[in-house]
Amino acid sequence: MSELGVTVGKRENFSEWYSQVLQKAELVDLRYNVQGFIVHRPWLMRIIRAIYRLFEEELERTGHEPVLFPLVIPEENFEREKEHVEGFKPEVFWVTEAGDERLERRLALRPTSETAFYYMYSYWIKGWRDLPLKLYQSVSVYRYEKTTRPLIRGREFLWIEAHDAFATREEALRQIREDMENSRRVIWEKLGIPFLFLRRPPWDKFMGAEDTYAADTLMPDGRVLQISSTHDLGQRFARAFDILFLDRDGEKKYVWQTCYGPGVWRIAAALIAVHGDDKGLVLPFSVAPVHVVIVPIIYRSGDREAIMGKAERLRAELEGAGYRVLIDDREERTPGWKFNDWELRGVPVRLEIGRREAEGGYVTLYRRDTGEKERVADGELVDRVRRLEGEYLRNLQERAKRFFEENIVEASTREEVEKALRERKIVKMPFCGREECAEEIKEATDGGKVRGTPLDLEEGDYGRCAWCGRPARQIVYVAKSY
Amino acid sequence: MSELGVTVGKRENFSEWYSQVLQKAELVDLRYNVQGFIVHRPWLMRIIRAIYRLFEEELERTGHEPVLFPLVIPEENFEREKEHVEGFKPEVFWVTEAGDERLERRLALRPTSETAFYYMYSYWIKGWRDLPLKLYQSVSVYRYEKTTRPLIRGREFLWIEAHDAFATREEALRQIREDMENSRRVIWEKLGIPFLFLRRPPWDKFMGAEDTYAADTLMPDGRVLQISSTHDLGQRFARAFDILFLDRDGEKKYVWQTCYGPGVWRIAAALIAVHGDDKGLVLPFSVAPVHVVIVPIIYRSGDREAIMGKAERLRAELEGAGYRVLIDDREERTPGWKFNDWELRGVPVRLEIGRREAEGGYVTLYRRDTGEKERVADGELVDRVRRLEGEYLRNLQERAKRFFEENIVEASTREEVEKALRERKIVKMPFCGREECAEEIKEATDGGKVRGTPLDLEEGDYGRCAWCGRPARQIVYVAKSY
Repeated sequence: MSELGVTVGKRENFSEWYSQVLQKAELVDLRYNVQGFIVHRPWLMRIIRAIYRLFEEELERTGHEPVLFPLVIPEENFEREKEHVEGFKPEVFWVTEAGDERLERRLALRPTSETAFYYMYSYWIKGWRDLPLKLYQSVSVYRYEKTTRPLIRGREFLWIEAHDAFATREEALRQIREDMENSRRVIWEKLGIPFLFLRRPPWDKFMGAEDTYAADTLMPDGRVLQISSTHDLGQRFARAFDILFLDRDGEKKYVWQTCYGPGVWRIAAALIAVHGDDKGLVLPFSVAPVHVVIVPIIYRSGDREAIMGKAERLRAELEGAGYRVLIDDREERTPGWKFNDWELRGVPVRLEIGRREAEGGYVTLYRRDTGEKERVADGELVDRVRRLEGEYLRNLQERAKRFFEENIVEASTREEVEKALRERKIVKMPFCGREECAEEIKEATDGGKVRGTPLDLEEGDYGRCAWCGRPARQIVYVAKSY
Repeated sequence: MSELGVTVGKRENFSEWYSQVLQKAELVDLRYNVQGFIVHRPWLMRIIRAIYRLFEEELERTGHEPVLFPLVIPEENFEREKEHVEGFKPEVFWVTEAGDERLERRLALRPTSETAFYYMYSYWIKGWRDLPLKLYQSVSVYRYEKTTRPLIRGREFLWIEAHDAFATREEALRQIREDMENSRRVIWEKLGIPFLFLRRPPWDKFMGAEDTYAADTLMPDGRVLQISSTHDLGQRFARAFDILFLDRDGEKKYVWQTCYGPGVWRIAAALIAVHGDDKGLVLPFSVAPVHVVIVPIIYRSGDREAIMGKAERLRAELEGAGYRVLIDDREERTPGWKFNDWELRGVPVRLEIGRREAEGGYVTLYRRDTGEKERVADGELVDRVRRLEGEYLRNLQERAKRFFEENIVEASTREEVEKALRERKIVKMPFCGREECAEEIKEATDGGKVRGTPLDLEEGDYGRCAWCGRPARQIVYVAKSY
């Protein structure tokens, strides 16, 4: 148990706020003795497990099936796709020894699993009846990152990777829309985190892909964070791994592939950062390990029986309605200490039951998102919590969306771009499409990156590039990023 | 899809039967290009996920919380407990390089995580209020095994590891009972797999433990398989990792520890082997990815609408009652082919709906465990399936228990021991308790191993050792094993 709450404001010093919340809400422990590898503590693990289940449900609803591929990938698999190996090799951890022996060939800890999955896809895909093939796995991956930050960039981090193969390019492109919809349904609808879905510029795509599409959310310090991505792999890996199928027309053809990676770790980071406030976490019902905490307030021992009896009754009622409920009856802690502790951990609803509540046929209900208290008659409690669940999510969504939208600024001149990025805003601007121009922006603005074009905005005549003045064929978002 | 069913009997040639089932029911793929690492396919992953959830539920009900520790463990952590490092070092995979760099120190892929968890326990455990500490993780572990067999012995395999710390030895010993009860509730009550819970002889304990207790089930070839184990770690790791707490009496004391490992992989193997029959898998409802498969039998296109309409109605009803239902409407396959395929995959219930069923207000229900068919009136279907669920589990339990018990033979002479082990039975016998004697048995019987003593059988006077004739202070089970 942490002894003290968070001591800095989220907006004033996000970095310090984030560190304190991770530690004081007992989400992670950074003292493990391998750099960049962290310990996931129970409260975080329950949140992460819930996030996984939300995505897995959506993936399975849309025809994906779960698999588990080996952690290790032989070096030769990587070598098959030239751009991919160049992109990932500097980041790979290698297993080279086992027992007293030196292995004949190095084995990579998966940094991502294209070259494991697609090795098998050439066995599994023979004819058009085998398509589409849509498989996913929920796993940790490993990258030798120089700098790390918990839940944002790690040497070991958690994600889902879905690997899909299709008979036609059109189906593959439709999959990108489906992936976007999957992200929207979980990240926005269930978790209340707003994001932009952008097509990355060609110089910022996944190594080995034709195109990369990604969801960017906005962190409280004005930097964007990529929280999920889909790659249009075209037929590159199909050629590298000989994934051919006999089509209805009797011809052998390479499959078209996409892969989709909801960044479960980063989504947890965004959840903490976007909804959290100066008291700590604010968790949506969808992933809160505890929905309702009941705090008995007992000042005279003669009241104990009535108060605890009522606490137990209400717990049973709420659990019967499907809620996760905890009675915090720790004797060594004061009610005030418990209030702070559960607020820090982000539990959506607190019920206070003291003598007055026990005798008066009501409870005092505190909601974490607004900090408001209300009296609720015992008989109406389940209904009230059920209504509250919807109000609470809508409130989180509205607050998050307002912050997100207030921080997007349209710019049409270099000065406007510079000013907006200085103020840590996301810039929306007409853009010439040139990598040189993107490089210039980045240097001049201390890291402002062209994040890409909105998926639904066709190329067209958008006037002049806000930075260089050349003709603009596209609208892009520019922001500093993690 | 496999084209043919299993071609050998489970009892006649278990090894071949097992290989065929794994492949033809599309559970695993062994063609991945790293030896000893296998691909888990969707049907198996769904079963394994269900097994995990059963255990996780029990663990959390008894006060365990989920965590996730790093995959990699520094070599220095292993070195801290002398016996442990000697036991595991020959089996460890080592990460030695990252990117272009050689790491300063080797990192082990966790073969088991005592030395990761307990490194942190010294931070987390300070006073008696921090105890008991009961944490678990659901992960893959890595061991450089010389020979491998899918789901039984692998270089990468799936399990749960629970690591508990207590203030007293008594609590630690109670935990061993709780772990046994946890195994019983899942492995026997939910999965219908019988087992013996034995205290291993001292020469066969976990390296670093004071004592090892383990659950052994019996495979169809007469060999036993350890499917879960609990280790009484005493204070060995507490001393090695300085896990001290300030007790109520003001004294600093080392904690008492246990660790518990339900072998999820091996439990899946036992599930396949124990309940399976000559047609393939027979899955209990608790873990079947599909409870009820509906096969429409359409010979005339005019019947299609009525048959499919009924199939959809019944699916909705059964899903409403909480069952996982699939309508197999693949047009390119015959009903007979589908029957065989779902029998191979072990789906508990099949509903056949043809023209007669569509018109007659009933369905033909086939149950996988007995192979019996019956007519069920439409209005009674949900009730029938609900009753069947219990009957089916009891039938699997009874069958499995009968086989298990029939294969335990009491022996009081060397000849009886030899004969029973030749016939691939489990031998129950009085034993002198000497390692030399156990070694002799093993050599003379081509691998018969003293597996240990039943947990509830006190030491006492049990006459003479069936093997060497010396006084016997204990009863042991002896069997060939995986």
